Amino acid sequence: MFVPGSEATSEPPLPAAARPLVVQKFGGSSVGDADRIRRVARRIARERDGGSDLVVVVSAMGDTTDELLALAAAITDDPDSRELDMLLATGEHQSATLVSMALQALGVPAVSLTGAQAGITTDGRHGRARIANVDPRRVRQELANGRVVIVAGFQGVSQTDLEQAETTTLGRGGSDTTAIALAARLGATRCQVFTDVRGIYTADPRIVADARQLAVIGYEEMLELAHQGAQVMQVRAVELGWVNDVVIEVLSSFEDAPGTLIKEDPFVEQRNKVRGLAHDRNVAKITLVAVPDRPGVAHQIFAPLADAGINVDMIVQNVGHAGSTDMSFTIAEVELGRAKRILGPIIRDLGFREMTADSAVAKVSIVGAGIHNAPGYAARMFGALADAEVNIEMISTSEVRITCIIAEDQVETAVRALHAAFALERPEAIQGDPAARPGGGETTSGAA
Amino acid sequence: MFVPGSEATSEPPLPAAARPLVVQKFGGSSVGDADRIRRVARRIARERDGGSDLVVVVSAMGDTTDELLALAAAITDDPDSRELDMLLATGEHQSATLVSMALQALGVPAVSLTGAQAGITTDGRHGRARIANVDPRRVRQELANGRVVIVAGFQGVSQTDLEQAETTTLGRGGSDTTAIALAARLGATRCQVFTDVRGIYTADPRIVADARQLAVIGYEEMLELAHQGAQVMQVRAVELGWVNDVVIEVLSSFEDAPGTLIKEDPFVEQRNKVRGLAHDRNVAKITLVAVPDRPGVAHQIFAPLADAGINVDMIVQNVGHAGSTDMSFTIAEVELGRAKRILGPIIRDLGFREMTADSAVAKVSIVGAGIHNAPGYAARMFGALADAEVNIEMISTSEVRITCIIAEDQVETAVRALHAAFALERPEAIQGDPAARPGGGETTSGAA
Repeated sequence: MFVPGSEATSEPPLPAAARPLVVQKFGGSSVGDADRIRRVARRIARERDGGSDLVVVVSAMGDTTDELLALAAAITDDPDSRELDMLLATGEHQSATLVSMALQALGVPAVSLTGAQAGITTDGRHGRARIANVDPRRVRQELANGRVVIVAGFQGVSQTDLEQAETTTLGRGGSDTTAIALAARLGATRCQVFTDVRGIYTADPRIVADARQLAVIGYEEMLELAHQGAQVMQVRAVELGWVNDVVIEVLSSFEDAPGTLIKEDPFVEQRNKVRGLAHDRNVAKITLVAVPDRPGVAHQIFAPLADAGINVDMIVQNVGHAGSTDMSFTIAEVELGRAKRILGPIIRDLGFREMTADSAVAKVSIVGAGIHNAPGYAARMFGALADAEVNIEMISTSEVRITCIIAEDQVETAVRALHAAFALERPEAIQGDPAARPGGGETTSGAA
Repeated sequence: MFVPGSEATSEPPLPAAARPLVVQKFGGSSVGDADRIRRVARRIARERDGGSDLVVVVSAMGDTTDELLALAAAITDDPDSRELDMLLATGEHQSATLVSMALQALGVPAVSLTGAQAGITTDGRHGRARIANVDPRRVRQELANGRVVIVAGFQGVSQTDLEQAETTTLGRGGSDTTAIALAARLGATRCQVFTDVRGIYTADPRIVADARQLAVIGYEEMLELAHQGAQVMQVRAVELGWVNDVVIEVLSSFEDAPGTLIKEDPFVEQRNKVRGLAHDRNVAKITLVAVPDRPGVAHQIFAPLADAGINVDMIVQNVGHAGSTDMSFTIAEVELGRAKRILGPIIRDLGFREMTADSAVAKVSIVGAGIHNAPGYAARMFGALADAEVNIEMISTSEVRITCIIAEDQVETAVRALHAAFALERPEAIQGDPAARPGGGETTSGAA
């Protein structure tokens, strides 16, 4: 993972910029057509008029990525990941140039850069590259020339030799990751992630009518929310922000309203409270019945899944009896077919009784720093689900989270019941009025 | 201009390839959709099965370039040429990756390269860059690894530092130029240009029903045909092929038929014959009436047009009388508005009587090596036009061409009359049967 300061320091330190630097990121729906691109340009111009230097990271326009994938699928059902990366990266090249043109049309000096030009090198793994380094020579040079720098998100190159450099894409949430890596490397005062919602909510507002927008959330809490299914920010981008201490602001690209700040929260210990709910329907549960209860069996099951790139999420193994045990685990629903094909021969070799799979399950989670040290929360969660007649199939916990696997068709019932049980619609006494927030008047004093 | 051998020789010479190398180029309509891309891939695979190493240059799919231009136009009416180059280059990136995927799906090892990866550097002029050098390190490495190399046409980069390298496009006909530059640098045995016609014809077959496909044409003749409006190959690509002595074959991507070879023709002197006709409707004529007849006036008129990048084609100045003269010249019709705006103030300064402009004119040309030394051709051309009641407004000649400016609505009449007058439908005795040509059994023996 990229951490500023961990790189070689051959580069002389640059003088501190006279103007604060803000990194902004606009997602695909924000730049979905020419009108929206012009609107984004006006928003960028306004921020620049406010006195900031700006680096802007953009995703591909609207459905471009899906359309390119469909084109590849029309040609082959097994596209080479290296070719696919070259293909998909063009979507962000296009949106970056168009945003740059729109700014220039407003009289704002601007330049678009590819991932390569922005100095983003990766570990070279196609389709799921991780950023290895950011060498912002060109970005700094363009900023010094007074330009707004538009960077094509979601991509980097495998190395710095022009002919050998291979385009690599960063996988899901890649543009968020680009933005936060640049913010970290450039020492930006803030990384603003513009999206189609106003910020982070206590629960999905489409399910819970009185879901409340949070003014601030800590990195760890946000990480758990993202990991448990909140779609607003990707896990890896939050992680990168956390490790590099980048203040992230999630906000709407369609309305002028304060968003949610993601940052280190020194009052977490004192708050000790459920901050939000997450749910995820893209879950499948596999149960292995009568697994031989001997050392090494778990490795034999999970190593081949890991080799195939299938992430196993929750794992529950019951207490064994008579030399065998039952084991359940969850994976992403889209991976179920592949997982079953991989596990088929292993099951026969190891002599399980049977394997069952259920894709009609979902996860619901409560998230809040300090939950783990306050036993009352688990009981209240289970009680609220029981009162709503939602059956719990699996449970897992972390420092800041409790997750239950339930039937998929009970997700909305469960989320509403939990939101009410923890009174998440009530403004937190420990936070100032979100509307007053951008001025810095926030009062995050402790309370439970 | 790029000429092999003119570059630094720091690179050690590579051993001669065991297999002949062929460069193929497919235009936008050849790769217009997934089906056509698969068909192109089958064609490439067949050529490769025949024992050749292959480098394939592709244009953007179908209308992609126009769609990208429309997108830019929806955002600004004056897009920056640097941003436009980044935007347009994505079209060729996309088609290159898709052709590579289609080959891989056929079991043919393939890799797509951007202009940068293919080592194509340019003079850096956006929108109309010229190739400065081709460093085919990566291309040779991929060929040595047994891969078909698909190169994104129409583009190069301004320099070789990854972060500073700017994408530059080569302007109209850019992909042809890419293909011929690669063929020259790699020492290919042939550069095949696949298009939507079967080859070079004596006249546009849409106008002249019995227009005949030529089996062979010399570089100079082809250059004049292209320059005078034949759309099949761009002038600069033919020039590059001529200077580097690349054998070019123009052929159809939709049917399996022999095309037309463009190559040095040692029998030109003996043939001494009209080979083909060209016409161009994209012409406008400007006449300056009563131009002061003194030194330096022509410079004052044409220098500002050249500065604005407006190409002046034919220039005719009549013999002066009473200290003034009339001057007519032609430009591309699409440049007429700009040219008039530039010339307006100059006319006032120089004291012309008036400027008239006519965009309802067109060029028709007869082309054939040796025409200039055989005076009978001009007389026959003018006679044929007179018999067809086509008025000639301007005339210009070169070593291998005679061009007349006529009324635009008489183009078809003129072309048909000239085709008949020079009996171009008759097979040339000096050439073998085109159908037998690919086997090398061509008999280009002299005859007039």
